[in-house]
Amino acid sequence: MENTHYQKLTKTFARLSRFSHLSAIAGWDMFAMMPPNGSKARSEALAEMSVLCHQILTSQEVARALSDAEQEDLNDLERANLREMTRQYQQAALLPESLVEAKSLAGSRCEHAWRTQRPNNDWQGFAENLKQVVKYSREEAALRAAQRGGSRYDALLDIYEPDMTSARLDALFGDLKSWLPDLLARATEKQAQKTLIAPQGPFPTAQQRELGLDAMKLLGFDFDGGRLDVSAHPFCGGVPEDVRITTRYNENELFSALFGVIHETGHARYEQNLPREWLGQPVALARSTALHESQSLFFEMQLGRSEAFLTRLLPHITARFGNQPAFERDNYIAWNQRVKPGYIRVDADEVSYPAHVVLRYEIERALIEGEIEVDDIPALWDEKMQHWLGLTTKDDYRNGCMQDIHWTDGGFGYFPSYTLGAMYAAQLFHAARRALPSLERDIANGDFTALFDWLRQNIWQHGSRFTTAQLVINATGEDLNPHYFRKHLETRYL
Amino acid sequence: MENTHYQKLTKTFARLSRFSHLSAIAGWDMFAMMPPNGSKARSEALAEMSVLCHQILTSQEVARALSDAEQEDLNDLERANLREMTRQYQQAALLPESLVEAKSLAGSRCEHAWRTQRPNNDWQGFAENLKQVVKYSREEAALRAAQRGGSRYDALLDIYEPDMTSARLDALFGDLKSWLPDLLARATEKQAQKTLIAPQGPFPTAQQRELGLDAMKLLGFDFDGGRLDVSAHPFCGGVPEDVRITTRYNENELFSALFGVIHETGHARYEQNLPREWLGQPVALARSTALHESQSLFFEMQLGRSEAFLTRLLPHITARFGNQPAFERDNYIAWNQRVKPGYIRVDADEVSYPAHVVLRYEIERALIEGEIEVDDIPALWDEKMQHWLGLTTKDDYRNGCMQDIHWTDGGFGYFPSYTLGAMYAAQLFHAARRALPSLERDIANGDFTALFDWLRQNIWQHGSRFTTAQLVINATGEDLNPHYFRKHLETRYL
Ligand SMILES: [Zn+2]
Ligand SMILES: [Zn+2]
Repeated sequence: MENTHYQKLTKTFARLSRFSHLSAIAGWDMFAMMPPNGSKARSEALAEMSVLCHQILTSQEVARALSDAEQEDLNDLERANLREMTRQYQQAALLPESLVEAKSLAGSRCEHAWRTQRPNNDWQGFAENLKQVVKYSREEAALRAAQRGGSRYDALLDIYEPDMTSARLDALFGDLKSWLPDLLARATEKQAQKTLIAPQGPFPTAQQRELGLDAMKLLGFDFDGGRLDVSAHPFCGGVPEDVRITTRYNENELFSALFGVIHETGHARYEQNLPREWLGQPVALARSTALHESQSLFFEMQLGRSEAFLTRLLPHITARFGNQPAFERDNYIAWNQRVKPGYIRVDADEVSYPAHVVLRYEIERALIEGEIEVDDIPALWDEKMQHWLGLTTKDDYRNGCMQDIHWTDGGFGYFPSYTLGAMYAAQLFHAARRALPSLERDIANGDFTALFDWLRQNIWQHGSRFTTAQLVINATGEDLNPHYFRKHLETRYL
Repeated sequence: MENTHYQKLTKTFARLSRFSHLSAIAGWDMFAMMPPNGSKARSEALAEMSVLCHQILTSQEVARALSDAEQEDLNDLERANLREMTRQYQQAALLPESLVEAKSLAGSRCEHAWRTQRPNNDWQGFAENLKQVVKYSREEAALRAAQRGGSRYDALLDIYEPDMTSARLDALFGDLKSWLPDLLARATEKQAQKTLIAPQGPFPTAQQRELGLDAMKLLGFDFDGGRLDVSAHPFCGGVPEDVRITTRYNENELFSALFGVIHETGHARYEQNLPREWLGQPVALARSTALHESQSLFFEMQLGRSEAFLTRLLPHITARFGNQPAFERDNYIAWNQRVKPGYIRVDADEVSYPAHVVLRYEIERALIEGEIEVDDIPALWDEKMQHWLGLTTKDDYRNGCMQDIHWTDGGFGYFPSYTLGAMYAAQLFHAARRALPSLERDIANGDFTALFDWLRQNIWQHGSRFTTAQLVINATGEDLNPHYFRKHLETRYL
């Protein structure tokens, strides 16, 4: 039997997926396992693979098969798969191999050097590498914008969030800016009336790890298809069949690693529940970065910091670390719901978090559009941090623009996903609660079956079958609406 | 400037080396990190990569460039590199892609299932998978033999030990068989006169790991370019820039993991000291598996179990585990030099070890030559174990032919390397002692500089520049001579 064009494409994309598997594991290893001297060879190996995948994806045979397959008789899922294939092809086809390789190498170099530059607060050294990354990202943005139309930054945004534009972001974030500063001030003021007892460490790493594993079990992480490890910056990597999440431990701080684990577990469960029978095909991939983030924030913020879940978690904490005044129920819940503007995005509470995102969004957009240069970042960062959170980062790069690695690998356009994710998470949790009247009680009892079934049926199992808008409308009855996020914050914090 | 054919080849082989890098790390991960459900996707990814590398290596451009480069003006090192490229090409070119892929898949499947089959003593289940592996290995051997001439088994042997033949092995192992049983009997008898005190556990895994790291430091392992982890079967993997060694821990047994680490450290130092400026090219690879094994056995047996080194190591052991009667110096040394025939090859002492190897050599040769079938293995194993070591493995597959994974991935032809390696190690240690009159004193003082410099200069830094015979003659003044191994065993054990 002759293969159809569509069938040939599924074979090519399955092959690409197998190559990505190796890159994903080697990439995880790079952050979680690799000793420093492996860096150069690893970067070169990953870059070589990235060039190969680019060649395969952008070959004339793929181009021709994509257009021929459009004429073939396909069912809905196949058609969605073809749509996602075409999207991947278009994203890749306009980048010359040399740019792909140069950008990948510059990114690895920048990230690797960052590991020692950050502790040394070495902005000059970091800026030099970052300039290379920005140079290639601007080239990429220009090429993409020339093809799609629209602005350069919008062209990068589209990689992570199909159908999202900076115009729409300006509206969404504009809405946020109109009420968030006031909400932040009121929440801080309200909390200032009560003095909280801080947990007293040390909390040994080994026990923190066990506590994280407890939480992962509670949240249904499949340990036969994934692992928990350590890296400087928590992430969720690997492949859907073998999901690798990481966190980092500070023996003086109990909850940072724990909620890092809960966050990554949200990402992991999305990956672990993508449609198994379609794995390896583009339609089986997670819908978008904002949707991915909505799952991690659903776990970390909507569920994880809810009174019901915190109550359910408390016995695990005292079982691992004994009792202490900070673990008295009301204090413990208030401690994990406290609002405290700080320097570090990944440690931020959910009320001040959007400030970090909007700040970066504004800087990275200006950077890509060529309105500012890398050397302008520290001053702008300081100014915006002062404006939003009343904190200065002058000369403190390690807690300012060098605090994490998103920009090191040229991931411009990614940051907005975090706050879009928070908005989606609030909207989804609202819909789940409506659908599941006994939700609060179930959570307090540690029974998450109905909630996770709801997520599986409404989000996880669909992969990329629907557009983000379709998926969210099917799940909640309407397109993205920031009202639910505002409502959530007001209910929890005011 | 136009590239020469030779230069084009170096680019292709560098590319292949980058792809191998990803496979090597993903392969290490598979044994040291991967959760069970990742197995299928990982096998498929590795198989896809193996097919790709096979395609690149056996392409017509490579074939043509190899023959054209022969006419070019090359220096000695380049010529050696070209010789090794040609060898790789010839090894690969006669295997059809479909066989490469089928063998790789069958091997991964067999290895993965073995992990649960071995604890269950499930020979039937294992045999079913192994038959597939043997089938493809026989096909491979037939194809290789048809091209090279010689027997089928010799064709597989040549993959691991260029220039080695079963005729020569029969002579070397025949010599061994003429004196080893007697030596084994006399050593056992001599040791029976003294009762030894066994170390009393438990020895917690975490401290055993620290002790292993102590030994690795002492032995010059570069931790900026490598790691120590855990796997069911100790191995040395990764890439020369990032060498991954593993061991396994038994809390009731102190020295098994430790000497596993010392063994793998020998492999690792060879890899870490291959010629840096040639990395990525075939000439920079380790010379052969027997030479590789000679380095690990040099570390584990020649050096590691010598009185001088054991004495140097003792304070590390008591620092980690306190004192106990078994750690009294004479008892401790005798304990680590005791001869005790047992079921498990990797736990065997160096006197009985060759019995394990000759047994497997005879079985695997017969298996590949089609003289026996997989179903015949257990009975033959039992018969030979009884003959050599007086032990029966009847119905005990887990401690018999299912004890390790060499055959699961079709690595037939590899086993003889272990005993060839032991012979090379003895010959090399003899030469090093001749060259370094203060060696014993240096070792007792923990000063291994001169010894490792000698190894670096004579073995490590040459990679595959010379043939095995040339390398050994340069280092020791003569070709492989089993006399030194016999001498070493007699001196230490009689
Ligand atoms: Zn996240
Ligand atoms: Zn070895």
